[in-house]
Amino acid sequence: MRCGILNIGTELLMGQIVNTNATDLSKKMNELGIGVLYHLTVGDNEARIKQSLKLLMDECDLIITTGGLGPTEDDITKACIAEVLEREMVEHKESREKIESFYNALNRSMPESNLKQALIPKGAEVLINNNGTAPGLWIENDGKIIVVLPGPPRELNAMFAESVLPRLKAMSNLVIKSVFVNTHGIGESSAEERVLPLIKGQSNPTIGTYAKPGNVQFRVTASDIDENKVDKMLNEMVGKLEDELSEYIYHIGPEDLSIEQVVAKALVDNELTISTAESCTGGLLSARLVDYPSISASYYGSFITYDNAFKKKGVKVDPELLKKHGAVSPEVCEAMVKGLVDETNTDVGISVTGIAGPGGGTDEKPVGLVYIGLYYKGQVQVFKENFFGNRMRVRNYTVQRALKYVYNAINNDIIKM
Amino acid sequence: MRCGILNIGTELLMGQIVNTNATDLSKKMNELGIGVLYHLTVGDNEARIKQSLKLLMDECDLIITTGGLGPTEDDITKACIAEVLEREMVEHKESREKIESFYNALNRSMPESNLKQALIPKGAEVLINNNGTAPGLWIENDGKIIVVLPGPPRELNAMFAESVLPRLKAMSNLVIKSVFVNTHGIGESSAEERVLPLIKGQSNPTIGTYAKPGNVQFRVTASDIDENKVDKMLNEMVGKLEDELSEYIYHIGPEDLSIEQVVAKALVDNELTISTAESCTGGLLSARLVDYPSISASYYGSFITYDNAFKKKGVKVDPELLKKHGAVSPEVCEAMVKGLVDETNTDVGISVTGIAGPGGGTDEKPVGLVYIGLYYKGQVQVFKENFFGNRMRVRNYTVQRALKYVYNAINNDIIKM
Repeated sequence: MRCGILNIGTELLMGQIVNTNATDLSKKMNELGIGVLYHLTVGDNEARIKQSLKLLMDECDLIITTGGLGPTEDDITKACIAEVLEREMVEHKESREKIESFYNALNRSMPESNLKQALIPKGAEVLINNNGTAPGLWIENDGKIIVVLPGPPRELNAMFAESVLPRLKAMSNLVIKSVFVNTHGIGESSAEERVLPLIKGQSNPTIGTYAKPGNVQFRVTASDIDENKVDKMLNEMVGKLEDELSEYIYHIGPEDLSIEQVVAKALVDNELTISTAESCTGGLLSARLVDYPSISASYYGSFITYDNAFKKKGVKVDPELLKKHGAVSPEVCEAMVKGLVDETNTDVGISVTGIAGPGGGTDEKPVGLVYIGLYYKGQVQVFKENFFGNRMRVRNYTVQRALKYVYNAINNDIIKM
Repeated sequence: MRCGILNIGTELLMGQIVNTNATDLSKKMNELGIGVLYHLTVGDNEARIKQSLKLLMDECDLIITTGGLGPTEDDITKACIAEVLEREMVEHKESREKIESFYNALNRSMPESNLKQALIPKGAEVLINNNGTAPGLWIENDGKIIVVLPGPPRELNAMFAESVLPRLKAMSNLVIKSVFVNTHGIGESSAEERVLPLIKGQSNPTIGTYAKPGNVQFRVTASDIDENKVDKMLNEMVGKLEDELSEYIYHIGPEDLSIEQVVAKALVDNELTISTAESCTGGLLSARLVDYPSISASYYGSFITYDNAFKKKGVKVDPELLKKHGAVSPEVCEAMVKGLVDETNTDVGISVTGIAGPGGGTDEKPVGLVYIGLYYKGQVQVFKENFFGNRMRVRNYTVQRALKYVYNAINNDIIKM
């Protein structure tokens, strides 16, 4: 099946919002084994909406539109589709009643324009919107399918999951499954170089690569009518990825998890407590841990010792060490993590000190030089890192690297037990 | 002038990356007063690239393409353009020399395929790429302009600023200027409701609205051949915005600044020191301050007192207060900020305690209840907030609100002086 996506909304053409709908829908199509040929974005303009629909209907079997379903004059998606398909617009009774009862419940009179949302091209099936008032549509026409979705991502994603995905799946007897393999510490091109030979000349399973700052993810997707065969293909391919990338992997599973989610969960599951002493990251590491809702069982707190005075007062770094080696040194990093754990008594302690830039670098201590101290069950290790890039990149990589060290410590310990 | 944007790259259609190029280019066109009619994305497919070019050339005066300029077989953008324009491909000598010297400098033999990057449609002007090897193009054809840019955003944005923007500006004798008016504390629809009547029925200046979490921005853009008139129009419109939104505004200026940038700069400029004691934000507030490169002059450090034990030990909250009122209470919030400043001796102190969710809420203390304590030059104030939304949203709003209070304190103080 060949898919075209038509995003309708002047705000996209003005650059006011990024078109994440096209990306999200493409990812989902890709997971379903449906190829996407076009993304097309137009404003609330009748001629251009119609022309785009015709182009996509010429080349694709499945056309997904987003946006232009609201009650205002600008919202003309459904009327344009009806014209292109040469169908009349008719009222959908349940939708009318739903809109009326919405206003009744608010004790407000309904503006007449709202009834527009209950008009649909004749023969279209209505997709219920549980997160807004504008319904979506599923239209079959001459062997083509046109799926009409609302623009707001929250409404779109829910409607897709509830009403579109099951229909698309039901059209095929294929079982399609994906597994995420998430890594930290290897660059995108190096990772691809190792992985692409694994899938050369084959299209099932597929491997999609997604690079985020400090993080390269692979999504392995396999499909077959036989679920056992799908599982076998996935296991084999994931095994090969593990062989190539084992030291970088922090997560393998059906869900896409960040390293902070994985580490936070491991801490909570293993009843380990943690605290941090941060200089250049300035609280970024602790903030990432606190992103995890259940972290209160494990996270004690942090000293953000940005000023050297606070390194002395907060985590009791010896002023002589600071004078002799400078704040960005393995000696001070070690003293920070030791002083931290003395104060907090946690099972895991992390200290970070480095030069995030853009200023402050020297030949001896360049921008990007970072020391990470790890305390784990009585032992202290200090790691030296040289990151490149701007201030935010250096700080982000530092946080991910520190979390990877915690991951390694917990996992090795658990494996040893 | 009417513009169409053609993004070429299979990775976009696979959903592997979000198409920020289309958004960024649209914003820039909008600032230049150039309307964008289409965004079109296709893969590395000859037929679809050509068909898309034809569609855009039928309807637009300016076509901007991105991507497909590399040395591999997939990179066919220039060849497709040459065919559509019925021009032959010729070698661009300087580009060939640049590529050869690049490989010479590396002491590596050049793969023959790299010379492809030096081929251009006859008559095209080459735009130098200072951040990569693939040059861009400026082609004029039958009164239309085709601008060919590389796909990587860093290369694209630099080339646009260096080579495209000056040419587009030179084509018009208009002076175009923009001013940003950035707010916190008012929702997008309320803000628009107040602002849209100001521009009803007029198109110069324009007001673009951009909503980010906790932050609604307006970009006012005026154009005229007379720069004085432009400044006058901008001043008048910005004055009207100030009348409508004064209590929410934290920044007015030609650059788009975040509230953390504004507050960090105000702290440094006024030689004020700051420290924080954070519970539910978990270091997010301190991390935002540390985003600002020169903050070391002002930022002392933070206690991230997530565990109540650390509220007692770190910022000396009386255990009786915690027992009597609970951690999320005005009393504990006040004690946190007082204890903080006792430890850190900074001019400004901020404490935060709240329920970020999703768990932990009660009828009396629901998810989203947050207290923010502000110490400023000897005085303490505690603010009660009720935010809604998920854990990340509550924490983000808390950070922005706390920064707004610091902004207010500094600004009122300075105005008074």
